[in-house]
Amino acid sequence: MLPIITAFAASPDRGRGLGRDMPVRWALEEVGQPYDVRLLSFAELKERPHRERQPFGQIPTYEAGELVLFESAAIVLHIAECHPGLLPADANGRARAISWMFAAVATVEPVVVQLERAAFFERDKPWYPDRLALVEHQLQARLKDLDARLVDRAWLDGAFSAGDLVMVQVLRRLGDSKLLARFPNLAGYVARAEQRPAFRRAFAAQRAVFTERATRDAAGRA
Amino acid sequence: MLPIITAFAASPDRGRGLGRDMPVRWALEEVGQPYDVRLLSFAELKERPHRERQPFGQIPTYEAGELVLFESAAIVLHIAECHPGLLPADANGRARAISWMFAAVATVEPVVVQLERAAFFERDKPWYPDRLALVEHQLQARLKDLDARLVDRAWLDGAFSAGDLVMVQVLRRLGDSKLLARFPNLAGYVARAEQRPAFRRAFAAQRAVFTERATRDAAGRA
Repeated sequence: MLPIITAFAASPDRGRGLGRDMPVRWALEEVGQPYDVRLLSFAELKERPHRERQPFGQIPTYEAGELVLFESAAIVLHIAECHPGLLPADANGRARAISWMFAAVATVEPVVVQLERAAFFERDKPWYPDRLALVEHQLQARLKDLDARLVDRAWLDGAFSAGDLVMVQVLRRLGDSKLLARFPNLAGYVARAEQRPAFRRAFAAQRAVFTERATRDAAGRA
Repeated sequence: MLPIITAFAASPDRGRGLGRDMPVRWALEEVGQPYDVRLLSFAELKERPHRERQPFGQIPTYEAGELVLFESAAIVLHIAECHPGLLPADANGRARAISWMFAAVATVEPVVVQLERAAFFERDKPWYPDRLALVEHQLQARLKDLDARLVDRAWLDGAFSAGDLVMVQVLRRLGDSKLLARFPNLAGYVARAEQRPAFRRAFAAQRAVFTERATRDAAGRA
């Protein structure tokens, strides 16, 4: 029995690999663990049985035997603990890598998501330009700190780890905003991670969900 | 040598235990581990040597021998892994408790902080009432899901765990907003956690930092 993850049947990012299934696919590829995917419609996300697996009605989940997990970073950590390759062998290095996982989702991602939410929910509001400036200011302060960390490092702390995987995935959400290009160390860091064979396999797998659906939809219309 | 944590010398919340040192103090109290505290001014946060310990210039950090960690939830997880009492003994229960830790900081806290940031940075902006309504709407959706989880449970998954500790600390930030009172299961959950002796000891310890400073400042003015 392979582990099963859940992902969007209709990818809202049109296959750009920004969904939160992406870091889980990537981690599974890094450790060489094959997996199955259950694709869910937006309606299914909010209903049972998915709701029982994911209390907030989100993707991804991870099922392996009796174990059901949610939260992408928690799933990545679980995969990293079950297989070698994503956490340092020494206890202190391991704890530091986990600090970076939490930093990615608790300190960096919220300001990234704030920018996305502003663009999504407030683009048509009269206050949008002023608020965008405020949000970008907060985000740049975080990115500047992270950029400084990477001045003389290829990865956040020693070898590539689950901390880098989760952090890169957060930074990838900025792809279209041109903000990342202002921070050369960060841009290089993300590019380096995207060259990893495991990243490319994971990206191709999520991309296939989008392209297959688009082809099917086109055939349906023909 | 006791572990050393860092906290604000001048608590911005006036001793209400909302600083991110609070969950770390609480976790240390739950497992019975004494600790030392290094208090930092706002200027010291942004400078070396603190910056070398905390890349974003925040509190808390945790130092034990050669190990230096940051991110409160990562520190709580490290404490929970080094001592019994905060994670279930079985591997699946442990992984689920860690899912809840990530859910607290990655799924619930960002919408709570969004409300705080709006109040702090945007209270004087013309758009504030409209934006507040939007932010509260997003926050209530999350709180509703979490409230449903706690209908027939005292804690999120079995016995009290590090997942509850981090989640309760996130919810406590809503204390003054009256939002929590609209969700009776959540309000009861937080109240239950605040009755724990370890919580009360941690709360008293951070409160003392505020009251001692206030007393000293008053003496200086006399």
